[in-house]
Amino acid sequence: MKATFLYAPGDIRVEETPEPVLLAPTDAIVRVTAACVCGSDLWPYRGVRKVPHTVAMGHELVGVVEEVGADVTTVKPGDFVISPFTFSDNTCQSCRAGFQSVCDHVAFFGSHDAAGLPTVGAQGEVARIPLADGSLVVVPAPFDDALVPGLLSLADVMSTGHHAAVSAGVGPGSVVVVVGDGAVGLSGVLAASRLGAARVIAMSRHQDRADLARTFGATDVVADRGDAGIAAIKELLDGELADSALECVGTEESMDQAIGSVRGGGKVGYVGVPTGGSRLPIEVLFGRNITVGGGMAPARHYIPELLPDVLSGAINPGLVFDLELPLDDAAEGYAAMDERRAIKSLLRP
Amino acid sequence: MKATFLYAPGDIRVEETPEPVLLAPTDAIVRVTAACVCGSDLWPYRGVRKVPHTVAMGHELVGVVEEVGADVTTVKPGDFVISPFTFSDNTCQSCRAGFQSVCDHVAFFGSHDAAGLPTVGAQGEVARIPLADGSLVVVPAPFDDALVPGLLSLADVMSTGHHAAVSAGVGPGSVVVVVGDGAVGLSGVLAASRLGAARVIAMSRHQDRADLARTFGATDVVADRGDAGIAAIKELLDGELADSALECVGTEESMDQAIGSVRGGGKVGYVGVPTGGSRLPIEVLFGRNITVGGGMAPARHYIPELLPDVLSGAINPGLVFDLELPLDDAAEGYAAMDERRAIKSLLRP
Repeated sequence: MKATFLYAPGDIRVEETPEPVLLAPTDAIVRVTAACVCGSDLWPYRGVRKVPHTVAMGHELVGVVEEVGADVTTVKPGDFVISPFTFSDNTCQSCRAGFQSVCDHVAFFGSHDAAGLPTVGAQGEVARIPLADGSLVVVPAPFDDALVPGLLSLADVMSTGHHAAVSAGVGPGSVVVVVGDGAVGLSGVLAASRLGAARVIAMSRHQDRADLARTFGATDVVADRGDAGIAAIKELLDGELADSALECVGTEESMDQAIGSVRGGGKVGYVGVPTGGSRLPIEVLFGRNITVGGGMAPARHYIPELLPDVLSGAINPGLVFDLELPLDDAAEGYAAMDERRAIKSLLRP
Repeated sequence: MKATFLYAPGDIRVEETPEPVLLAPTDAIVRVTAACVCGSDLWPYRGVRKVPHTVAMGHELVGVVEEVGADVTTVKPGDFVISPFTFSDNTCQSCRAGFQSVCDHVAFFGSHDAAGLPTVGAQGEVARIPLADGSLVVVPAPFDDALVPGLLSLADVMSTGHHAAVSAGVGPGSVVVVVGDGAVGLSGVLAASRLGAARVIAMSRHQDRADLARTFGATDVVADRGDAGIAAIKELLDGELADSALECVGTEESMDQAIGSVRGGGKVGYVGVPTGGSRLPIEVLFGRNITVGGGMAPARHYIPELLPDVLSGAINPGLVFDLELPLDDAAEGYAAMDERRAIKSLLRP
């Protein structure tokens, strides 16, 4: 089969590689309908995160089950499934509490599963999904092919935006600031709006992203950053601050921006993977009674809640995909995102 | 009147000082029925926190209103009141959200109010309470004098333990670890139990405190700390971890203990004022999806909820006071706590 590999920073190749097979009785083999490029894929692509060897890329996919192991009971060949970006047993304490992304047996695409067996990347034609019962979510048939991007977004980006909003305590009437206008931040805007926020302020400096933020329910857009950004928020809110902030970047600056955007007792939900210098200023948090929560999104937990809204068209998170390419052109999908010509690239094998 | 002053580390004196008077139309003058010594009072007492000059001590009191300013509408002379340890307007955005401890006009005993007018310490015979409407809570008369310690505890320590539990998301069925067996930690045990926790594990090495923890509803006591403490918790929980941890100390070790005590997706509520080296390890928090929240407790917000349970005898948080002294013996109240002969000292003017 064909699959996507990173050989070195900037060097993405789609190559022939052996098709994965069942390795454990809890596995499923899934033929990929659509995969995509994640903002976090750009780190090794840009050389920000060093990788020691050739890496199988991709961790988001939807597709059709081809084969399942003897112990798999909840998915069967022919099922259309969404695979969360983390594999989980869905039975351990953290899973039962709704945090499958920190499952005792958590594993990732393009690496090894908890049993030490190899996994492939999601940007390929076929994938082996370990712990299929605990990981995959079946999409009820039939559905329109136009929903594929929306369904794919649940694998990571929409679930991640939702996790930021949930972690920030967003609910009906909330006033929310979203830091970051990438696909996750935009999904956070949609999630906050869906959860009933009264006001969603998107921080964005890019017209196309600001426009999509408004489509997703942003009531306001602030282009300023730092203290000027906070001043702009205060001006919008008659001198007050937000109840909640979604930190969807992962830098120290973005975390400070989020913390500075909320009132005393406010909540920051963060899903930007902390990069290097990121820190939490405990004195500021304590002094202002600010709660910080988040991490990798438990997509497996959220998909059953979000899926009906995608199927009904109540939300259209697939709009974050503004570039669709054949898998063979994966390199262009990366380049377009790297050069900010695309928000998020969808790949069709 | 008499009041308590710290002249230097270890040097507590009760001295004559001018009685406070109304300075603003929003003030109340309160004759103190009971005050007490806080664990945080021990920092300057021990010289851990340097103080540049003689300090008026105390920030917890209950008493009877003697006089109110022209603009005060909710308390009147003769009312028995609880004064939270922070003064608040109870109208600003943070106050309206239930975080009066980070009020836009927050002020403290023994310092100055938001208008720059001097406040006295609570460990004296009479106190000036600024922003009386926004700060004081009236206790409905009549009540038994035996309830005074319990009512006094609401001014800080019980409300603070409750804030730790609320910030840690404790609710019916929660499994909770409480780090710290001082008066705040013990109050946290009581608060968690009151909120319906199924299991409350108190970390304590002192028999008297462990006994009181059990009286307050602790189902288990763990004497070990660090990795051994976490191992002991896991043993109690059949290999699992707690849903919530209450950090009631304020050191890096206690924060790490709290973080290490909760499952993936767990919550840490912290009320221990971060001392020096305290930090939040964001990579650990992100990697395990752990939420951290807390700060100074909004006692003004919690007292109306907790007061009926104190008046009815449903809870008896006053048990944290195991030493009662006349105000004149304040120095002994400090020494007894410093030498761990007392958990918390109550002072009667």
